[in-house]
Amino acid sequence: MSREYLANRETSVSDKMKPFDSLVTPLLTDFYQLTMAYAYWKSGHHNIQATFDMFYRTAPFNEPFVIFAGLEECIRFIASFRFEQNHIKYIANILPHCEPEFLSWLQSLDCSQVRVDAQREGSIAYPNMPLMKVSGPLATVQLLETTLLNLVNYASLVTTNAHRFRIAAGPEAKLLEFGLRRAQGPDGAITASKYCYLGGFDATSNVAAGYKFGIPTKGTHAHSFVQSYQGIEDIRHSQTSLRKLDGSNMDLQSFIRRVFEVRKLLGFGDSTSEGELVSFIAFATAYPSSFSALVDTYNTLQSGVPNFMCVALVLSELGYSPLGVRLDSGDLAQLSLKVHELFQSLAAKYAKECSPPSDHYLRMLRNVSIMASNDVTVELLQDIASRNHKISAFGIGTHLVTCRENPALGCVFKLSKIAETARMKFSEEWYKSSIPGDKAAYRLTDIDGICRDVVMLETEPPPVPGQAYSFRTHTKPARLVQIITEKVERLLYPAWHGRVLIDITPCLKYLDTARETLRLHFSQISRTQEPYLLLSEELHQTADRLRRSEFREIATQP
Amino acid sequence: MSREYLANRETSVSDKMKPFDSLVTPLLTDFYQLTMAYAYWKSGHHNIQATFDMFYRTAPFNEPFVIFAGLEECIRFIASFRFEQNHIKYIANILPHCEPEFLSWLQSLDCSQVRVDAQREGSIAYPNMPLMKVSGPLATVQLLETTLLNLVNYASLVTTNAHRFRIAAGPEAKLLEFGLRRAQGPDGAITASKYCYLGGFDATSNVAAGYKFGIPTKGTHAHSFVQSYQGIEDIRHSQTSLRKLDGSNMDLQSFIRRVFEVRKLLGFGDSTSEGELVSFIAFATAYPSSFSALVDTYNTLQSGVPNFMCVALVLSELGYSPLGVRLDSGDLAQLSLKVHELFQSLAAKYAKECSPPSDHYLRMLRNVSIMASNDVTVELLQDIASRNHKISAFGIGTHLVTCRENPALGCVFKLSKIAETARMKFSEEWYKSSIPGDKAAYRLTDIDGICRDVVMLETEPPPVPGQAYSFRTHTKPARLVQIITEKVERLLYPAWHGRVLIDITPCLKYLDTARETLRLHFSQISRTQEPYLLLSEELHQTADRLRRSEFREIATQP
Repeated sequence: MSREYLANRETSVSDKMKPFDSLVTPLLTDFYQLTMAYAYWKSGHHNIQATFDMFYRTAPFNEPFVIFAGLEECIRFIASFRFEQNHIKYIANILPHCEPEFLSWLQSLDCSQVRVDAQREGSIAYPNMPLMKVSGPLATVQLLETTLLNLVNYASLVTTNAHRFRIAAGPEAKLLEFGLRRAQGPDGAITASKYCYLGGFDATSNVAAGYKFGIPTKGTHAHSFVQSYQGIEDIRHSQTSLRKLDGSNMDLQSFIRRVFEVRKLLGFGDSTSEGELVSFIAFATAYPSSFSALVDTYNTLQSGVPNFMCVALVLSELGYSPLGVRLDSGDLAQLSLKVHELFQSLAAKYAKECSPPSDHYLRMLRNVSIMASNDVTVELLQDIASRNHKISAFGIGTHLVTCRENPALGCVFKLSKIAETARMKFSEEWYKSSIPGDKAAYRLTDIDGICRDVVMLETEPPPVPGQAYSFRTHTKPARLVQIITEKVERLLYPAWHGRVLIDITPCLKYLDTARETLRLHFSQISRTQEPYLLLSEELHQTADRLRRSEFREIATQP
Repeated sequence: MSREYLANRETSVSDKMKPFDSLVTPLLTDFYQLTMAYAYWKSGHHNIQATFDMFYRTAPFNEPFVIFAGLEECIRFIASFRFEQNHIKYIANILPHCEPEFLSWLQSLDCSQVRVDAQREGSIAYPNMPLMKVSGPLATVQLLETTLLNLVNYASLVTTNAHRFRIAAGPEAKLLEFGLRRAQGPDGAITASKYCYLGGFDATSNVAAGYKFGIPTKGTHAHSFVQSYQGIEDIRHSQTSLRKLDGSNMDLQSFIRRVFEVRKLLGFGDSTSEGELVSFIAFATAYPSSFSALVDTYNTLQSGVPNFMCVALVLSELGYSPLGVRLDSGDLAQLSLKVHELFQSLAAKYAKECSPPSDHYLRMLRNVSIMASNDVTVELLQDIASRNHKISAFGIGTHLVTCRENPALGCVFKLSKIAETARMKFSEEWYKSSIPGDKAAYRLTDIDGICRDVVMLETEPPPVPGQAYSFRTHTKPARLVQIITEKVERLLYPAWHGRVLIDITPCLKYLDTARETLRLHFSQISRTQEPYLLLSEELHQTADRLRRSEFREIATQP
């Protein structure tokens, strides 16, 4: 895998290497990054070499891990990192006493001296393991901090959440992301659509996400569509026609007559909503080969499904196979069974009247699908999966994109090395302290197929397959773990060393690669028991030495 | 107020009338809006006149109301609504069978025939009351739905949340929004910064929000700033100097010597972290007139506060008044008391050694402030407010911007009128049904100062002050409420009737107007008991008639 990777590393920075969201500029940062930059500059400290780690401490949703996402947008940001003239004018405004030389220096900044090593997009990442390691001149890297956190936190959170929905729904169900209207802002929505796809969704309702990333878009119609038609008068004068699959045409008025005949034949007379029936006819006229209908505007079983069947059966007479119905209320599992049963009984009735049924009609009945879309949560999916049901697709919005149970991921960005000295941020709880030094990370698989992640100092030789190692655990450093590795995979790869080193291909291909990374990683970790992070002995000693010296420094209190 | 309003309504559409976020285009919509548009067009139904209401059913956070926000961005979107050539090409791609005439029609669309009446930005809005009423050609208005919901849902949610933090903190505390790194994407962050300001915050850390909207930006430094300095060597060779307030200069090396003298004089010898002390010196050199420091990197009371005091006291000798300290961990209320106490005892010690203290030194001690910023929630603010503490400012991030307790507002967009017929969406629970017809809305104040909101048909004469009225309640229509109004305020104002009718001035002025609206409304509603929505008798009869006819239509089941 490493070799294929290297083959693509020559990608050069081009005009296209911009963030997808034009709001992502060097000004998308906390003001304190600018105040610090000035103070660094003022004390001549700005170009000192520094390394920062981005990692999270606790996984959301009571999951053991997070799926790392957002790397591509981070690299696009870094590749295009430049303060524009207008930015500089604004900064001069909010830091009114700073010298013109500082502003000139700011304007000259770029990321040519910065290095980013990162896990692959779509990786399964455990707590405290660096997702990204960023090195370079102190002030420059510091100016990247907030933006990188913003770009990784939500992307990784929503990918992880989407993956939970996928696991709950099982591999077969079609999952459609419908979150745009409830998401936290326009970009919250587009980001959600992109990363839900990475996390295992099949399509989105969000057209802008389809346009930008090539993600498949799906959708039918809304209740208002149904309600906007009041009766047959609304389409009485329409001159349009339907093309039969045999090549001839059927004018709309004949189609309408036949639908009303079938309605009578199935025994509905005028008992179903005429407005709804007309709206379905209008929709079928526009989408004869992919007809589907929202059936709960008035009454699912008494009006929506019968009306759908009348239109669907006539379409089948023309040679079309309608897609199915969408349920948007009620007990979805139970209702899907009743709807399916109603399909069967109406079909039987129709077959009796119009036998022998055509091939298309039979095909239609085999393939008619039920999609459900009302306030779907992970728990609801689990409940539905455990029961009898006939739902083949889910439209999921609010809970998915806003990550209701855990709406923020808490990635942090901690200094791990300054000049030649390892640094760490201490916490009273030892396992909350950051891991010091410039590090490499590996996923080790032992002969039983169990995976463990280990961090070591970059200067240590990488683990070698077949050898036995003894590591510390991060949470309980006194504990020693013996491992005989069978497979060693490096986790942090060069992504930017003054130029782009990941393969940022047109977006859908990039996302599909990330989906494949996720699939591979997930097939590994599903066999992992009790995941924890390991530290090499040398790294453990470094941390311990730092802790002692730091605590000695402030031990004697007046 | 209405008259002032009208004076500004001539604002014309200009190039500047674009959404702030370039992601906000007509493609930022659900795919089903496009599929519906085509089906409307195909059945000749697209230009029929329709009215939709945007409203929400349940307020988040167990609050009785929501603060309406997002209007300005909605109007900017509507004013600039146009499919671009690239959009049309993409649509032709995802609706491959549609006629070129449909695409031409799409490309010709704008909002010149659309009317938007809306509550004022910053209004207190109760459940089921229209926030916005959008009328125009059916397909055009339908194409606006998703984007408008996206722009209003999160803006209103986060404004309402910010207001809760303001109420919990009380009117005096400075509230700073620090959510950028944890927000749901770049726009989630900028939107949060904007609307937290509307909801009552004083400033943001988000520089991009300051740049775009003129919101004040605030910030000091991070732990990494402190950790990046290891000792006096780091600034030993710096040639910079500090300007005293008397106009003369003090070179940095003299400043450093004096700080270390004061450190000894206060009895700290070398017991505080030298790296931290040096970082404070570096920061003070950059910001002598607004020096503040994050004091919990190593140990707040044993290192951070003493180091801050050493630097602050020397700055005061130069004539400067340092701002204060930031606490980012621990029991904030209790720690603030201890920090304050330590200020006093160190000041007393200093006064004994260096008496008589200068004026500046005294002023410094009076004004030194304590800011707190660790995972602040509404509950924590309430807890702190109920206890003894010395915190004068809060930095608030994650919980504020992601609205953790309730991360989505559920605004909906329902058809209320098509051609000349009122329409409504029914629900088994009556109060969940939408309110039909083209409506006007009023806030009525009675002689006891109690406010009630009422909706009526647009064709009914508005209520007149001094007259007695009898209304229905929305939740229990059988209940009649008698009101003698003293004051009548219209709630829905023209915002767009083919041209912009609200005063979209440069942004901070607009936001300040919205803050004033919120202040005024809040002073009214705080006196309101048991808020509920009222319906005029005529509107109630309209709804009742529709309910009967709709249910009759599907009553006889085969």
